[in-house]
Amino acid sequence: MTRTADAVTPLAVALLSGGLDSAVAAASVVADGRDLHTLAIDYGQRCHAEFHAAHAVSASLGALTHRVVRVDLRALGGSALTSDVAVPKGRNDHEIGAGVPVTYVPARNTVLLSIALGLAEVVGAEELVIGANALDYSGYPDCRGPYLRAFEELAQLATAAGTERGVRFRVRAPLLDMSKADIVRHGLALGVPLSATMSCYDPLEQSGEWLHCGECDSCALRRRGFREAAAEDPTRYAPELGAGHGAGGAG
Amino acid sequence: MTRTADAVTPLAVALLSGGLDSAVAAASVVADGRDLHTLAIDYGQRCHAEFHAAHAVSASLGALTHRVVRVDLRALGGSALTSDVAVPKGRNDHEIGAGVPVTYVPARNTVLLSIALGLAEVVGAEELVIGANALDYSGYPDCRGPYLRAFEELAQLATAAGTERGVRFRVRAPLLDMSKADIVRHGLALGVPLSATMSCYDPLEQSGEWLHCGECDSCALRRRGFREAAAEDPTRYAPELGAGHGAGGAG
Repeated sequence: MTRTADAVTPLAVALLSGGLDSAVAAASVVADGRDLHTLAIDYGQRCHAEFHAAHAVSASLGALTHRVVRVDLRALGGSALTSDVAVPKGRNDHEIGAGVPVTYVPARNTVLLSIALGLAEVVGAEELVIGANALDYSGYPDCRGPYLRAFEELAQLATAAGTERGVRFRVRAPLLDMSKADIVRHGLALGVPLSATMSCYDPLEQSGEWLHCGECDSCALRRRGFREAAAEDPTRYAPELGAGHGAGGAG
Repeated sequence: MTRTADAVTPLAVALLSGGLDSAVAAASVVADGRDLHTLAIDYGQRCHAEFHAAHAVSASLGALTHRVVRVDLRALGGSALTSDVAVPKGRNDHEIGAGVPVTYVPARNTVLLSIALGLAEVVGAEELVIGANALDYSGYPDCRGPYLRAFEELAQLATAAGTERGVRFRVRAPLLDMSKADIVRHGLALGVPLSATMSCYDPLEQSGEWLHCGECDSCALRRRGFREAAAEDPTRYAPELGAGHGAGGAG
């Protein structure tokens, strides 16, 4: 993944959540010859394990800069990821796929992409990279192709770059139609340090280390991805919850 | 402006900056029979006078709730409003109208509308109210009609409300084609407490009171609006800077 920096290398702004998908999406764009500015958005998630992960991923990708921008979506309420609503645990695939999940954060990807667009305009990037995936998160309306195309249209009209300098912003979501197994395989092929990523909605701290709970929807999808890719899962799961669930339980 | 609360009154989320335009825009929507949830976005502006003003405006409009959401756009850089770039002072109308101003915050209205959209989804509102104005701020790409229509398209695809429940979000920008004088007249007709609003990019604190500088582009436009509306200007300007400029100077 090492490349020589080049003055004319196209720039991309990659949103990093610290999770598997955004890391693989960003790595995919680096492999396509882009230089990255990475951005983690702290929208009031309940724990900070993912920000350590995002920083580690950014460093491993050789990003030019990494920024954390705070936006306090907790003030809006409405999601298990930012409020006191319980994160569901131990659900099966059918349950995970049904309807809009309680972990849906209202307008989240719109807020994330807006901030990424602001950064793109400041640093002169024309691509926004997001780990959106339409299969495993089918309940999230803002993880679908038509939504992402609508954001490109908006970006063109929203910015001085688009209206004055003719920049055509592009939203790159290279994982959009991949299964989690495809994403795992793609990440391994690109050399992404998957063990450094944090997918869990409700991680546990143990002796200074953050462990995946192994039971939330996101852990279930992650587990299944490694299993279906027939790849060794390097994820550290909380032993009391996760052990023994990998083969036949939630994931 | 008093109305009886009604269970079926349509709800709107109004962005309040504390300034003249957003106050009049919100009041206009209240006059149209909407109940308001108001939202002030702290995106790292250099002073907090406007948040006091936004709160006062919200109270005067009888909003159901008022929230302040922080989003630290300073981390992106790129604007005189959020960084150490100097706010221009004493410019004439021709200079104010030329190109994208240094006070342009990259993707600002997209970030603001995104957060308003999140709140709209949480509270069940279908309208987003913004004080965008295409005439006096012609250099801001995100204060134009086509941009606002593109945001409506995006909102439809971005949300569970839009995709699952068929909600048609509408962005209301009632001041879009008004001159500042029209806005002043409209605000006075609606009984908006214009003296409580704060338009200045660079206000000065004096004996615990926030004064308009009288010299920045925003003060210049505000002054001109009152003058052209032939209305008494209740604005408190900093005496050493503002006195004597009202008739023949920057504004």
